[in-house]
Amino acid sequence: MRFLLLNPNTTETMTRDMEEQARKYARAGTEVDGLTAPVGSTSIEGFYEEEYAIIHFLEAIKKHAADYDGVILSCYGDPGLHAAREISPVPVVGIAEASMLMACTVAHKFSIVTVIPRVKPMIENMVRLHGFETRCASIRTTPLSVLDCENDPTAAEREILRESKLAIAEDGAEAILLGCGGMGPLDQTIGAALPVPVIDGIPCAVKLLEGLVDYGLSTSRAAAYKAPEPKEFIEIGGVVAGVSG
Amino acid sequence: MRFLLLNPNTTETMTRDMEEQARKYARAGTEVDGLTAPVGSTSIEGFYEEEYAIIHFLEAIKKHAADYDGVILSCYGDPGLHAAREISPVPVVGIAEASMLMACTVAHKFSIVTVIPRVKPMIENMVRLHGFETRCASIRTTPLSVLDCENDPTAAEREILRESKLAIAEDGAEAILLGCGGMGPLDQTIGAALPVPVIDGIPCAVKLLEGLVDYGLSTSRAAAYKAPEPKEFIEIGGVVAGVSG
Amino acid sequence: MRFLLLNPNTTETMTRDMEEQARKYARAGTEVDGLTAPVGSTSIEGFYEEEYAIIHFLEAIKKHAADYDGVILSCYGDPGLHAAREISPVPVVGIAEASMLMACTVAHKFSIVTVIPRVKPMIENMVRLHGFETRCASIRTTPLSVLDCENDPTAAEREILRESKLAIAEDGAEAILLGCGGMGPLDQTIGAALPVPVIDGIPCAVKLLEGLVDYGLSTSRAAAYKAPEPKEFIEIGGVVAGVSG
Amino acid sequence: MRFLLLNPNTTETMTRDMEEQARKYARAGTEVDGLTAPVGSTSIEGFYEEEYAIIHFLEAIKKHAADYDGVILSCYGDPGLHAAREISPVPVVGIAEASMLMACTVAHKFSIVTVIPRVKPMIENMVRLHGFETRCASIRTTPLSVLDCENDPTAAEREILRESKLAIAEDGAEAILLGCGGMGPLDQTIGAALPVPVIDGIPCAVKLLEGLVDYGLSTSRAAAYKAPEPKEFIEIGGVVAGVSG
Amino acid sequence: MRFLLLNPNTTETMTRDMEEQARKYARAGTEVDGLTAPVGSTSIEGFYEEEYAIIHFLEAIKKHAADYDGVILSCYGDPGLHAAREISPVPVVGIAEASMLMACTVAHKFSIVTVIPRVKPMIENMVRLHGFETRCASIRTTPLSVLDCENDPTAAEREILRESKLAIAEDGAEAILLGCGGMGPLDQTIGAALPVPVIDGIPCAVKLLEGLVDYGLSTSRAAAYKAPEPKEFIEIGGVVAGVSG
Amino acid sequence: MRFLLLNPNTTETMTRDMEEQARKYARAGTEVDGLTAPVGSTSIEGFYEEEYAIIHFLEAIKKHAADYDGVILSCYGDPGLHAAREISPVPVVGIAEASMLMACTVAHKFSIVTVIPRVKPMIENMVRLHGFETRCASIRTTPLSVLDCENDPTAAEREILRESKLAIAEDGAEAILLGCGGMGPLDQTIGAALPVPVIDGIPCAVKLLEGLVDYGLSTSRAAAYKAPEPKEFIEIGGVVAGVSG
Repeated sequence: MRFLLLNPNTTETMTRDMEEQARKYARAGTEVDGLTAPVGSTSIEGFYEEEYAIIHFLEAIKKHAADYDGVILSCYGDPGLHAAREISPVPVVGIAEASMLMACTVAHKFSIVTVIPRVKPMIENMVRLHGFETRCASIRTTPLSVLDCENDPTAAEREILRESKLAIAEDGAEAILLGCGGMGPLDQTIGAALPVPVIDGIPCAVKLLEGLVDYGLSTSRAAAYKAPEPKEFIEIGGVVAGVSG
Repeated sequence: MRFLLLNPNTTETMTRDMEEQARKYARAGTEVDGLTAPVGSTSIEGFYEEEYAIIHFLEAIKKHAADYDGVILSCYGDPGLHAAREISPVPVVGIAEASMLMACTVAHKFSIVTVIPRVKPMIENMVRLHGFETRCASIRTTPLSVLDCENDPTAAEREILRESKLAIAEDGAEAILLGCGGMGPLDQTIGAALPVPVIDGIPCAVKLLEGLVDYGLSTSRAAAYKAPEPKEFIEIGGVVAGVSG
Repeated sequence: MRFLLLNPNTTETMTRDMEEQARKYARAGTEVDGLTAPVGSTSIEGFYEEEYAIIHFLEAIKKHAADYDGVILSCYGDPGLHAAREISPVPVVGIAEASMLMACTVAHKFSIVTVIPRVKPMIENMVRLHGFETRCASIRTTPLSVLDCENDPTAAEREILRESKLAIAEDGAEAILLGCGGMGPLDQTIGAALPVPVIDGIPCAVKLLEGLVDYGLSTSRAAAYKAPEPKEFIEIGGVVAGVSG
Repeated sequence: MRFLLLNPNTTETMTRDMEEQARKYARAGTEVDGLTAPVGSTSIEGFYEEEYAIIHFLEAIKKHAADYDGVILSCYGDPGLHAAREISPVPVVGIAEASMLMACTVAHKFSIVTVIPRVKPMIENMVRLHGFETRCASIRTTPLSVLDCENDPTAAEREILRESKLAIAEDGAEAILLGCGGMGPLDQTIGAALPVPVIDGIPCAVKLLEGLVDYGLSTSRAAAYKAPEPKEFIEIGGVVAGVSG
Repeated sequence: MRFLLLNPNTTETMTRDMEEQARKYARAGTEVDGLTAPVGSTSIEGFYEEEYAIIHFLEAIKKHAADYDGVILSCYGDPGLHAAREISPVPVVGIAEASMLMACTVAHKFSIVTVIPRVKPMIENMVRLHGFETRCASIRTTPLSVLDCENDPTAAEREILRESKLAIAEDGAEAILLGCGGMGPLDQTIGAALPVPVIDGIPCAVKLLEGLVDYGLSTSRAAAYKAPEPKEFIEIGGVVAGVSG
Repeated sequence: MRFLLLNPNTTETMTRDMEEQARKYARAGTEVDGLTAPVGSTSIEGFYEEEYAIIHFLEAIKKHAADYDGVILSCYGDPGLHAAREISPVPVVGIAEASMLMACTVAHKFSIVTVIPRVKPMIENMVRLHGFETRCASIRTTPLSVLDCENDPTAAEREILRESKLAIAEDGAEAILLGCGGMGPLDQTIGAALPVPVIDGIPCAVKLLEGLVDYGLSTSRAAAYKAPEPKEFIEIGGVVAGVSG
């Protein structure tokens, strides 16, 4: 199988790290190609920046998804997931959704530990729209930005570990979900330091897509994800770079 | 006061109609300028098309909002509302939100009557994110597209009237909310034929913005609507036309 | 326009203060007449006392509402709102409802800061019946009674400010709603000391009523607010004083 | 034990019927005195009329409750229940609440079948405030008024039976709750015609009060039902008649 | 009347204590027989152990319930309640359910104080399935196991008292529910030390069953509690001991 | 990998069919062994029968789970899932849960189509406890029993197809979940006749377990699924047969 992993920000090193995290857990024969956003911001930490992620996601899907068996939206918040499903010929999975779905099989309640406090309302909305309010024990933030986490994994590990311990002790968390696309490899280091599963969304998305393809399920066209109506459309151009991998 | 009314689609006649509807209920001294989207589709009936509405909304706000006292997002579904509030120096009100807020003062439960069935999941999500589930008696659709409504007001009136009557009789609706930005003037004709308030979002948005300005309230920057973090950003260009009005 | 502002308690100075707060934000040409309750308690801090507020509200509406364009129930808790709407020929707005509706346009989540702890269950019920659970971050109380707030604005300001800061820091509040009819002018002083909107219900009610009148909306008679059935009725008498103003 | 049963309306024959229904299921040694409202309407079918019920309830409790072991608010809708508990020295049970609590022990979901459609929003609010949304399968109305039911039990039986059958067949009702204080004796006739429990609130209230007294439980004064604060109070007078029985 | 009280664990002294607690509040003429589980664990503190409680409950009901007027499932968590109702010819009440139902008549919100932390998810699920989320202020745990409570009532009293005070002060609890079948007599000692009702489920279950029998209500067979379909069945044998009492 | 598939009923042919359905979608190298319940009923259609399923599940897990990489509880309703996770050394997935988790990636709302009406409350409870209320459009039943479906696949296909079409047309279903462990192969035939994904829980469980093993996730021991406390325990014996496969 071949999956397209879309990094919503312009930071190429994060794409490479996400790709690596996806490939690490992909089974033999599954290929993953990462694609960096050519427009937008170096990281996604707000609603405005999410919109550029969505533009990138949609343009990349229009251009490339037909060459793949599935698409991974690699931004914790799952921006543009519904729009992506409308236009993608293949299944699309968001990493937030994927982490929550997989967590449900090993924990009755999970907490999400993420970056700076300003992203909390975005993640609250996302949890609510997916319908996971009763399974989500808490959303906890750290003082670190997305790029802080990328550039200083030691600080990231320390801060996430601290909030994770509080989530377990005070909120009833039975699993910790890493609330940022770039936190991937910390699942192992933080997981080793905690008595609960520590879950990154990228491997979960890979596994769910593999499962969807094996079982032959594809996106329902009955209502929410119906293809756009045929009508006059003026596109914006030039926002997608070449596929990596 | 001056308000900027953003039409999310490329249909100029709809912008003019919306502008007219807004001006009709604006108080003396309140000016409203409409702005048509230079990119995207002739109407918004899906998640994908909403994304182009959002691009337009955000670009127009960046370019023009500082010249106004408030912004009206004239698309029933309130796409991009959170992102718009992050970057707008002045209050932003969506017409769906506005219609529901005003309806709450005259009805315990309201129904939304809208266009073709495919928009129902979008509107359900919107109602849910705003937190109005317990006040919304039902969302009912018609066989008409957005442009059908625009081009054939007689058919629109007939279809919306039929579903509105069912909403009152079967769902417990005490007010009817017109679930499309272009249905405006039907509030009078359908309202005359029904024993309940029939509410269009555009006048509601105008009234709420006038109230916000009078009272001196502005968008909270404490959490959800904090301005974007300063960081490297690659913009897409050329998506906003000149301001009309 | 002319609005009738009903003060549910017997404290005439509070009526005058509420009237002043309403007039301050009313637009030119909008008149507001306050009316003090002739029966009941000097302040409303419990369910039993609310009942006397409701008697006053209903008697005043029967006697005077037809002379006005709208009625403001000036008691945070919105007691008797449904009954008032049943019998009023003009729109009725409660100040709690009004504060929450307006807050939704500038904040994703709000907190209510109010008087002594015993009123918290009343306000919880009110928030729940209006359907605002998901928008209300918290209800916080102070050690001050309604009359303490009226008589010692400095203490009121200090206590409300303290709880408001906690609401922002710990509960995710993005706006502070003043949870008592008599706290009005503190919206300016506390607002100046906080980085979020501080909202009093009285100006919000004035603005919403002005908007309703401008747009021509009136109370739905379809279900919850249907006028009472004609039937034999024994009234209690003499509970309403003359209209002030 | 002695219980005070308060009939909220001015129809003396209903008081006698309710008294009889209560006594029928009271155990040996339990006395029940009924009390008719001296003010208000001949029946309660709206929010406005409920307010007169509440005045009666509160005045009667102030005057007489100390002579009893418990108070029954005999109006389906439980108006004034919280206020009544604040001032009553003995436990107060509403018949709507009582019917739902007892129903929960014999049915997973119940439906309420009541009088004319206009009372539905009142009952919805009541169910919601008590927290029984997930146990209530539906609220169904009939074309009959409260007094129709009182005066024409045959019609009442026929209409309630019809809606009850629909509730069982279409809504998943496993028990039928009679949604009006005066429907009492129909529990036997309708119960005989249906394969599910048919429950009247008056016997349930009697049984719960007997249980509370046996176990020695009394109303909590910790928060919602704290006694009113001492303060200056102007009472309305003369609204309570002598106790019957 | 005669009630069968089922103790889900193998600790005979707990059965005797529960029996005593039930008899203490049963009215004259009501007999209560306790029955100890012959299989399973000495106490119930997890989902696995609950399953043995359920086996015992079901076998005992098959063998003995027809000789009784009602059955009490004496395990806080109400395990197997639905299955028990399916096969019991007489009403079945769980002590958790019973405590919550009775609490609703004297308190707007209650807290459950129970044993070791691991039982919290079980009790959360139970509260959720019964539909009492909005009435339950909190579930608080202590460091004591079920048998610790049985063997060291002084420690139990101290720990439960401490958590109960916190529930009142911090969570808004207006009543304390003793969250373990063996905590019974503490309702008096802890109740004497607290300003709120302290409620044990066993007396509540006795009172509710007495009420059901008096009113003549029996388990609905319409849906959830329909008797099992006739079909081939292989029983496990020998899991029920003789009835005590 | 090796998975243990537990059939909760005594019908050996269903075990073989379930095994076959699991193996059909297992990837190369994944083995699945089915195990039939030695006690209980020939099918599971009520709470009482579920208890025997649970006994079987737990005994089989105690005896055999250590030889496997994962366990599938093959009963739509997920009975005993929490208890199973407490004692299993390897991940346990229920087929209901699995079908809903996978459905979330291809549909915004799903409906469950199942056997005779009496199972509806069980499935409602299950959906509620898993937290999927907002994603579940409806639960629809057919006139067929579990064994009817097993013995007459043509009737099963016809009845399920009919209800599925209604779920899509009237309830907003975007995917159909087969609500019985033995309906497996109908996913292909019914799927071919419907414009939406038709999902059986067994393949979903296999895919989720493969994913969990690949990613290295195991059941959290932090709260709900903590292993039972060490204590005296009297087992019932002889309820598990030899492992098939």
